[in-house]
Amino acid sequence: MTDVVIAGIGQTPVGEHWDVSLRDLAERAMLAAIADAGGLRPDALYVGNFLSPVVSHQANLGALLVDHAGLNGIEAFTVEAAGASGAGALHMGYLAVASGYVDAALVIGVEKYTDQTGSELETAIAQSMDNDYEAVHGLTPTGQAALLMQRYLHDCDVPRQALGAFALIAHANGAGNPNAMYRKAIRPETYARAGLVSDPLNLFDVAPYADGAAAALLTRPELLPEAARARLVRVSGSSVAIDRLALHDRPDPLAFEAAGVSLQRACRQAGILPGDVDFFELCDAYSIYAALSLEAAGFARRGEGWRLAERGELNLDGRLPISTLGGLKARGNPLGAAGLYQAVEAVQQLRGEAGANQLAHPRRALVQSLGGPAATAVTHVLERLN
Amino acid sequence: MTDVVIAGIGQTPVGEHWDVSLRDLAERAMLAAIADAGGLRPDALYVGNFLSPVVSHQANLGALLVDHAGLNGIEAFTVEAAGASGAGALHMGYLAVASGYVDAALVIGVEKYTDQTGSELETAIAQSMDNDYEAVHGLTPTGQAALLMQRYLHDCDVPRQALGAFALIAHANGAGNPNAMYRKAIRPETYARAGLVSDPLNLFDVAPYADGAAAALLTRPELLPEAARARLVRVSGSSVAIDRLALHDRPDPLAFEAAGVSLQRACRQAGILPGDVDFFELCDAYSIYAALSLEAAGFARRGEGWRLAERGELNLDGRLPISTLGGLKARGNPLGAAGLYQAVEAVQQLRGEAGANQLAHPRRALVQSLGGPAATAVTHVLERLN
Repeated sequence: MTDVVIAGIGQTPVGEHWDVSLRDLAERAMLAAIADAGGLRPDALYVGNFLSPVVSHQANLGALLVDHAGLNGIEAFTVEAAGASGAGALHMGYLAVASGYVDAALVIGVEKYTDQTGSELETAIAQSMDNDYEAVHGLTPTGQAALLMQRYLHDCDVPRQALGAFALIAHANGAGNPNAMYRKAIRPETYARAGLVSDPLNLFDVAPYADGAAAALLTRPELLPEAARARLVRVSGSSVAIDRLALHDRPDPLAFEAAGVSLQRACRQAGILPGDVDFFELCDAYSIYAALSLEAAGFARRGEGWRLAERGELNLDGRLPISTLGGLKARGNPLGAAGLYQAVEAVQQLRGEAGANQLAHPRRALVQSLGGPAATAVTHVLERLN
Repeated sequence: MTDVVIAGIGQTPVGEHWDVSLRDLAERAMLAAIADAGGLRPDALYVGNFLSPVVSHQANLGALLVDHAGLNGIEAFTVEAAGASGAGALHMGYLAVASGYVDAALVIGVEKYTDQTGSELETAIAQSMDNDYEAVHGLTPTGQAALLMQRYLHDCDVPRQALGAFALIAHANGAGNPNAMYRKAIRPETYARAGLVSDPLNLFDVAPYADGAAAALLTRPELLPEAARARLVRVSGSSVAIDRLALHDRPDPLAFEAAGVSLQRACRQAGILPGDVDFFELCDAYSIYAALSLEAAGFARRGEGWRLAERGELNLDGRLPISTLGGLKARGNPLGAAGLYQAVEAVQQLRGEAGANQLAHPRRALVQSLGGPAATAVTHVLERLN
């Protein structure tokens, strides 16, 4: 397989874009990524989106966005895997370029959550779970995360406030990201006083759903002028794994098996060990997800992922920074677009363009996105080419 | 790029499967395709589906179906491009195998249309069009096809009954397909007497929406035992193109531009001319689509596609048979699954397993699927390997 690099990135601020349509939001990120790649024209567009058919009454987004961006003639599809949709689009773009089938693939994650309001939204998001056995009985992703957290606190004898360390990290980092939804650090007392959303999850254990679009342009390095190569980031690992969808089917609900499998595979493909990376953009849709992701990746023993956070090892100046531009928690969770925000932010770090949150000379990132309760797990290893 | 072959196929009958869930319907086709490939285990699953999030309240189908079929650990996604979703999944499977990233990819198209009834269904299907500029004003795909047909009859001076020849071919061929929804030939008088659905479309100009699942297992030929190679079908061309989504944006609404572009590209990739194929599984979701597809492919001049049908050239014993197992019109139109039915039927023909409808020693097939009003066009060239 040939080398695949990210030559351009683009993103809109994450938040509530009441005055922007899905197609306009997407276009901003797409055109920004193309411009950032020096105007390189893509041969294909893969669109990561989760909610549009239900929330915006619009399917066939490949055709819609190619048309809207004036790229007619190229190929396009929607890739859907709930919250991992954006990461899935990145994976598909990677395959298309790696196969030699296309020279340049534009991948975009877009979510226009605010095209609806009210209870239909939580119903729509619950489609990421097993509808017939879970959602139809009233369970939501947030309710499910609460069950997982309860089990974690009980089984692993973890103090209730321990997971708050993840929210503190995310909000501290969000403060330095101009595209983040929440740009204010919070204090431990703020976390401790926060109202419950679904016992034991409080407001700061739950990432806010939001609108947003992020895009990346993938190509082969030899197709770019020499001058452009200094900023390139290589996709050196790209792997997807599936776990049982319904939580009740899993032998151990606290083991995010697919997360572990896809991460191991991506690292093997990149020829590295997980510990060889400089930072980890993980899925902190819920604080409990962050803890379980660290444990599935082998960075912490079972029941101890939160200790890394508490000891400061996951801060920007720590051993393994996470959520370096705010994560889903503070940057916001634009669902089907989240995976591409994570990848775009990793590229910002690797290029040295992360502003106030810049890590010291990072060479290599792990980026992981989860769809459903870690039923779909997508992991990428991204590396500076030079 | 490496050779990619179809090593196994599977399908359920097309129709109204009131008593079968989406996951069970899909499982039947998936397991049949795996069994047909001698039990070869896939590394990836790409799911073509259009309506499930709206109609069955279930997204994340990759995770759902991998789990349900007991294939946990492999990678999976949904690929969506309205009526071209199944063909899109086939294209993605092709890219994954061609890239060398996976050894074997299972691709499935599944649609469970009967999970809802009533007007929501037509609304859901209208999401294939431009929602903000077309669907929201009440236009449906069927209404849009009626506008196209009206324009065709007028601009090209075509007699009203001329397009009926396509329905006669489809129903004649459906009679010989045990998986078809309608297995009865119709006579010209039946067509002439049929009630209008949307003037000038009558009942027989419109393919019936239906439930169904069809699957194919893709791999590289060198991974199969020598004995299995006799039945292999090579994917020698796989191409996708996008046209403007909204009909009013097209310089010539009667030119299915994306259909022409993707077909030319797929033929170039396969190193053939369109006229070198033995049959053409085209998209006859509406009889007018069949005529415009033949014209876009260059098999007929503008306004004359129907003449090929009238002259018998598209019959099973004609120069270029179409819809050889009934097409969308008589086999039924399972929307997001339709593209995989078309491909699976082409494989049946190429293997000599098409029963009563078997063509005489076909070597090469063109298979084309359309999403939205030919906004997304996916074309495959399939060839007997031996």
